[in-house]
Amino acid sequence: MVGNLEFSLLSAHGRARRGTYSVNGRTVETPAFMPVATQATVKTLSSEEIVGLGVQQIVCNTYHLWQRPGHDVVEGAGGLHSFMGLGEGGPAILTDSGGFQVFSLSGRRGRGARLPAETEGDRDEGWPELDGENAVPEGTSRERAPIVRRLDSDGVLFASPLDGKLYELTPERSVRVQHSLGADIVTALDECTPYPATREEVRTSLALTHSWERRSAEEHRRLNERNETRRAFFAIVQGGMYPELRAESGKILRELDADGYALGGLSVGEPKPLYRETLEQSAPLLPEDRPRYVMGVGTPADIVHAAAHGMDLFDCVLPTRNARNGQLFTWEGKLNLRNARFKEDFTQPDPGCRCPVCTQYTRAYLAHLVRAGEFLGLRLATCHNLYFYLQLMRRIREAIEERRLEKLLERVRTAYPE
Amino acid sequence: MVGNLEFSLLSAHGRARRGTYSVNGRTVETPAFMPVATQATVKTLSSEEIVGLGVQQIVCNTYHLWQRPGHDVVEGAGGLHSFMGLGEGGPAILTDSGGFQVFSLSGRRGRGARLPAETEGDRDEGWPELDGENAVPEGTSRERAPIVRRLDSDGVLFASPLDGKLYELTPERSVRVQHSLGADIVTALDECTPYPATREEVRTSLALTHSWERRSAEEHRRLNERNETRRAFFAIVQGGMYPELRAESGKILRELDADGYALGGLSVGEPKPLYRETLEQSAPLLPEDRPRYVMGVGTPADIVHAAAHGMDLFDCVLPTRNARNGQLFTWEGKLNLRNARFKEDFTQPDPGCRCPVCTQYTRAYLAHLVRAGEFLGLRLATCHNLYFYLQLMRRIREAIEERRLEKLLERVRTAYPE
Repeated sequence: MVGNLEFSLLSAHGRARRGTYSVNGRTVETPAFMPVATQATVKTLSSEEIVGLGVQQIVCNTYHLWQRPGHDVVEGAGGLHSFMGLGEGGPAILTDSGGFQVFSLSGRRGRGARLPAETEGDRDEGWPELDGENAVPEGTSRERAPIVRRLDSDGVLFASPLDGKLYELTPERSVRVQHSLGADIVTALDECTPYPATREEVRTSLALTHSWERRSAEEHRRLNERNETRRAFFAIVQGGMYPELRAESGKILRELDADGYALGGLSVGEPKPLYRETLEQSAPLLPEDRPRYVMGVGTPADIVHAAAHGMDLFDCVLPTRNARNGQLFTWEGKLNLRNARFKEDFTQPDPGCRCPVCTQYTRAYLAHLVRAGEFLGLRLATCHNLYFYLQLMRRIREAIEERRLEKLLERVRTAYPE
Repeated sequence: MVGNLEFSLLSAHGRARRGTYSVNGRTVETPAFMPVATQATVKTLSSEEIVGLGVQQIVCNTYHLWQRPGHDVVEGAGGLHSFMGLGEGGPAILTDSGGFQVFSLSGRRGRGARLPAETEGDRDEGWPELDGENAVPEGTSRERAPIVRRLDSDGVLFASPLDGKLYELTPERSVRVQHSLGADIVTALDECTPYPATREEVRTSLALTHSWERRSAEEHRRLNERNETRRAFFAIVQGGMYPELRAESGKILRELDADGYALGGLSVGEPKPLYRETLEQSAPLLPEDRPRYVMGVGTPADIVHAAAHGMDLFDCVLPTRNARNGQLFTWEGKLNLRNARFKEDFTQPDPGCRCPVCTQYTRAYLAHLVRAGEFLGLRLATCHNLYFYLQLMRRIREAIEERRLEKLLERVRTAYPE
């Protein structure tokens, strides 16, 4: 399948790698952070701002866009790039499979699995939606979640919370929808193993995941051969927190010869030491000559740590979600705009930052907007936080080239203690 | 008082006038529309966008900013221009007196007066505020409104809904707060006469208004003499729907020699024919050589009509409020983005419009954002609607110069029938 995405390793420091790939004419420098555009919008930001911030790849959610406005509508617009007004110079787009939403949000598993909305690394953004017909305020996603009616090896039948109709998510359907959406990178349908799960549960889940991923890859090949645009395909390694199951999953999925590999089922509520241990053991299971993506990660320190262990791609709602709570990421640590001391602080939000927000506004103004519940506050905080994350990635790439990633990790851990 | 604001009449067509003024180095071409920035933000828009759209003057609300973040905080920032990050090239700022909020929002009068939130031309924007500590969702402003404890000829004592503390609004206090906020144009404290009101009620209200306006003017002169910046001062003509009382108010207030004159107490729930009649009778009462401002007006047709009768300045929440409801102003009339037919309409929102939204996005994308309750939808709709209003003003100014305002009025009335 190689050839749909051309990945080059530029330099390495220990297990950390600095690389670059191009997919459908769009270039991504790794390690890279992908802002989340759940409903075909990076919350509050215009396409011009997304491009202006230097975003090279975003993640869109197949489940949400399939349901609304419909993949056929997006296809009619010429795909997501065109629908979102991103144009040719815009970022590459990776779509998830939709499985995460259908399974996890439906609360199908009751074995103590935390709902994703409660976990820090949640990939499905739960921002309060304003007055959409089917607005989903944060924290109530369960009531608005798809209701699973039947699940078997073929796929999953669910009732949509938007129109009450039944939909079937199969590996083939997921991949077809992703192709319709115009994704540059399509991902395999998998089952995101919840935490905790017994070894036997994970083993059963893995069998389903591997079968679905194989079918996803086949459907992807078929569509790529039929169509002009050659999209890339990422497989997802699962296996819970069990090293030997992760190893098995890595080995089986290598056979798919995917353009890239993701680690799924991490940052789903497990304790941080277990997360780190599993990540460190799992990263080397992914082929070295393909981009490696750890889904739903994470905090600044998590990202530097994962990059140090050879991961290349990251996505997380933290920069956008924290903006909503009035929190700014700065190089001195988190800054809570609701804090009374910022009321008359006329200095720039993040000292030294050159983002469009820090060069134009003061802490006092942002604090006022947040307290007054003004949209502009969310918008400006989102813009700064994404700039911070993109700046973090630039510094990671430089640090790898200059062989000083440990120092950067130390600095970030000091600013963001666990 | 002339000299704080230099107004020049450039051309006239019937009673309509095309003019220009400069205040504190900022130039405004009239007739002009002023977007509303209640809480020191034109809802959703960055300062860069406000300037980029060509906005020459905005209205900020004294009551809101006095209460939060506090006029002392804004003064500490160097005034509203600086606080909002507008810089030197930004628009002029007019502040209201705060009286409208304290009196009308408090529901002090029970005689069938419609609450401003229900009227089309309401100057106090009631957008749903997100998660501010004291967020005021639209339609609930009454519960969150100031509670009037004492009202006499001196002023009004009220309890703030934000901190429960007592505040006193007097003419002197209003003007001092406006000077602290750094307004280029300060307005007199008046009582906005509700509709309906008996002749006797209006007469009583007028006596209070005139005494307050005189005191406002005196305090303004005192502060202007003391300080370096020479701010301008607008008086407000009241008189309800009674022509002879309007005439009396106009005559008395001319004595204040204000830099500009406003018509208050219009668009407060009266029937449209009565509104038009009162406006037509009242406009000539205002001095010809000063800018004339009709507060809280209005629809596109109302603005062209008022300009045809010699009014120069307008402010209204319609472009921003309608954006929230998914309505776009276009030259073909209102466009409701929730309409099913836009779901797959990949044409530009307002055909021929050159605003940043119409040149980048499709109706289908905006419709999707609105249905999905995404902030970006509000933001893009707001941006387009303000561009439309500013474009309307450009066309009014051209039409006055080219002596074809009647034709423009006809076109706008066809697109926006009552």
